[in-house]
Amino acid sequence: MEIQYSKCVENLRSSEIRNMMSVAVRPDIISFAGGMPGNTLFPIKEVEDLYNQLPLSVKQAAFQYGPTGGYPPLIKSLMDYMQRKGMQVEKNRILITTGALQAIDVVNKILLDPGDAVIVEYPTFIGALASFLAHRAKLIPVSMDADGILPDELEKALDSKPAPKMIYLSPYFHNPAGIIYGKKRKEAILKILAGRNIILLEDDCYGELYFNDSDAELCIPMKTVEPESPQICYVSSFSKIMGPGLRIGWLFGPPEIIGKTEVAKQSMDACTSTYVQVLANEFLSSGKLFDYVKWVRGEYKKRAKVMVEALNVFMPPEVTWVNPKGGFYIWLQLPAGVDATDVLKSSLQDGAVFISGKTFDPEGNRNNCLRMAFSNTPEEIIPKGVEIIAKAINRFM
Amino acid sequence: MEIQYSKCVENLRSSEIRNMMSVAVRPDIISFAGGMPGNTLFPIKEVEDLYNQLPLSVKQAAFQYGPTGGYPPLIKSLMDYMQRKGMQVEKNRILITTGALQAIDVVNKILLDPGDAVIVEYPTFIGALASFLAHRAKLIPVSMDADGILPDELEKALDSKPAPKMIYLSPYFHNPAGIIYGKKRKEAILKILAGRNIILLEDDCYGELYFNDSDAELCIPMKTVEPESPQICYVSSFSKIMGPGLRIGWLFGPPEIIGKTEVAKQSMDACTSTYVQVLANEFLSSGKLFDYVKWVRGEYKKRAKVMVEALNVFMPPEVTWVNPKGGFYIWLQLPAGVDATDVLKSSLQDGAVFISGKTFDPEGNRNNCLRMAFSNTPEEIIPKGVEIIAKAINRFM
Repeated sequence: MEIQYSKCVENLRSSEIRNMMSVAVRPDIISFAGGMPGNTLFPIKEVEDLYNQLPLSVKQAAFQYGPTGGYPPLIKSLMDYMQRKGMQVEKNRILITTGALQAIDVVNKILLDPGDAVIVEYPTFIGALASFLAHRAKLIPVSMDADGILPDELEKALDSKPAPKMIYLSPYFHNPAGIIYGKKRKEAILKILAGRNIILLEDDCYGELYFNDSDAELCIPMKTVEPESPQICYVSSFSKIMGPGLRIGWLFGPPEIIGKTEVAKQSMDACTSTYVQVLANEFLSSGKLFDYVKWVRGEYKKRAKVMVEALNVFMPPEVTWVNPKGGFYIWLQLPAGVDATDVLKSSLQDGAVFISGKTFDPEGNRNNCLRMAFSNTPEEIIPKGVEIIAKAINRFM
Repeated sequence: MEIQYSKCVENLRSSEIRNMMSVAVRPDIISFAGGMPGNTLFPIKEVEDLYNQLPLSVKQAAFQYGPTGGYPPLIKSLMDYMQRKGMQVEKNRILITTGALQAIDVVNKILLDPGDAVIVEYPTFIGALASFLAHRAKLIPVSMDADGILPDELEKALDSKPAPKMIYLSPYFHNPAGIIYGKKRKEAILKILAGRNIILLEDDCYGELYFNDSDAELCIPMKTVEPESPQICYVSSFSKIMGPGLRIGWLFGPPEIIGKTEVAKQSMDACTSTYVQVLANEFLSSGKLFDYVKWVRGEYKKRAKVMVEALNVFMPPEVTWVNPKGGFYIWLQLPAGVDATDVLKSSLQDGAVFISGKTFDPEGNRNNCLRMAFSNTPEEIIPKGVEIIAKAINRFM
């Protein structure tokens, strides 16, 4: 029996990250591969205590189906949180999703037919890329510098045919580029997009993780501006401010769009786990989330500092990067002609891994670059891993 | 700004169930609407105790991303469970999904292009229906009697053009029809499907909930036969044997298909919540799930018995149904010309609700029928609700 798969399958590609995962968990390997929080940093005790003091009726609700749109107390807590971030909550609604990726995927589902054009950053988040490709979108990559996507290239991309229906940006501690958009760059982008019939999907999964309070204002979402056009759909997640194992994200956007995504989600997984929504709501509404985030920022700041110092010591001068102001990542630009997959094979033998740049390329090609995550590696191990990777790079120069 | 939605959106319909939900939770209404376990029946204490005795490393894993295919210890426990059910585990793999609905949706994603034909039962599960419609499949409904779909109609459906790619069946305590397929009927179906290039998607979310041990053998899945063709993908869930708020289902099928669904899921939600997978694994691998299921069968049996007795007392003789041998549901066939939505409006005023038949019709029309769930209503309240609905039916006869 020969199975004829859908056209969607032709577009799916298994990423290097997935194939690396089995290696990355070997205890003798120093891994900068996984874009994940450190295992020792989770607020396990806090969440346990919050659950244990819940009344029986809430525990029962946690085991039961909930509304597709989300567990109502969590929606309320998130609305308060959105307001605190400066959002115009009265003009928007929330859909709770199974991770931020599902928020992206459900927007794609209601907006994209095969061949529809989407503007994306180069490089871009692998999960979003997978969803765009599964919906058989035509991707238009726009390059970035240390301040975000390049306005000139954006204007050109907007003029391409068919007219792009959506633009997907991750302005805050970008995965994988590690950068944060400048204030002026964001203003320039909104000005270029103004009046256009396009949806801006703003991904803000890392924005809480700034290392210095003075950078907090860089993290004010474009969504707070709430222009008439472009319409902005804002995506965020509990993955980096509580734990990705919960798989809770949310979509914050115009009521009409949220209404459509809610009906679409009904056909995808009916609702996100009520159990984990109850946990997230307790963590957020009790305020313990904010104490935790304040603490965990400092932990990631320490890890980033150690990695930057090691890069300065070990990397050849031809390798460049932007020092991170927050988040999980540093993106290394290698000299032309040095292939990150070659480097990876070599550094793996010596005991350190990362993710090759082409994984994050919408076209799957450009590979003289790589992503290093400092988030999941204890400080004392980071320098050794950087040294191994630097040696591997040197072998190909 | 006018948004141009995808073609998928045109096919999505908001179900009566969704619109009823706000009413169904009013405390003064007796609701047979929600197809959900009783809130007082969940194994809350057992699961809490299991979580609390876990070592820190497992609690950390619960907060972390897991592999897309599923939390490895849960996959192992489910493989043991599948073997215990008579499955040929060495020929199959498992994908853990965010509820059984996502298992159905991801199979649809890798198999169905717009216009592809799928054979479904009439009536059929609303969630599956929503997913088929979102993938813009052409649905071919086949009628059922008390033993399952009708072989003659099935043969005709198989000969339709384009050739159906998939057939979706829920043979065990069918939602919404309430029936269980007969042994001979299942054999006849497999014989008709033999040698055909078609996927059988076998949905078994209720099969553990038989009321009498003597009916256990009726619940042996067709998947245990493991024919060369049709290839069978088997779907099940923790929703009815632990709690739907966890949102954990699984797909058990041929390695090639599971491999494709795993890559597709990577574009949908990356992985199902590790936290709830850890809970499900503890409940299953400790054996406590089996003790619980044994107990909860008895609870649903009592509720079903009370509902059947009330139906016998209050319903006019023109209303017919099949007495349930397990599961959550009774499907009432009303006399021709009596519209379930009219009945619903009337019975709602008197304080009792159910779901109209057309909700489960692939074509959204036939409505002289309705679904009553006995699963979520305490025994002492059931007769009053049945009496109200019987009175409402009488008004339209």
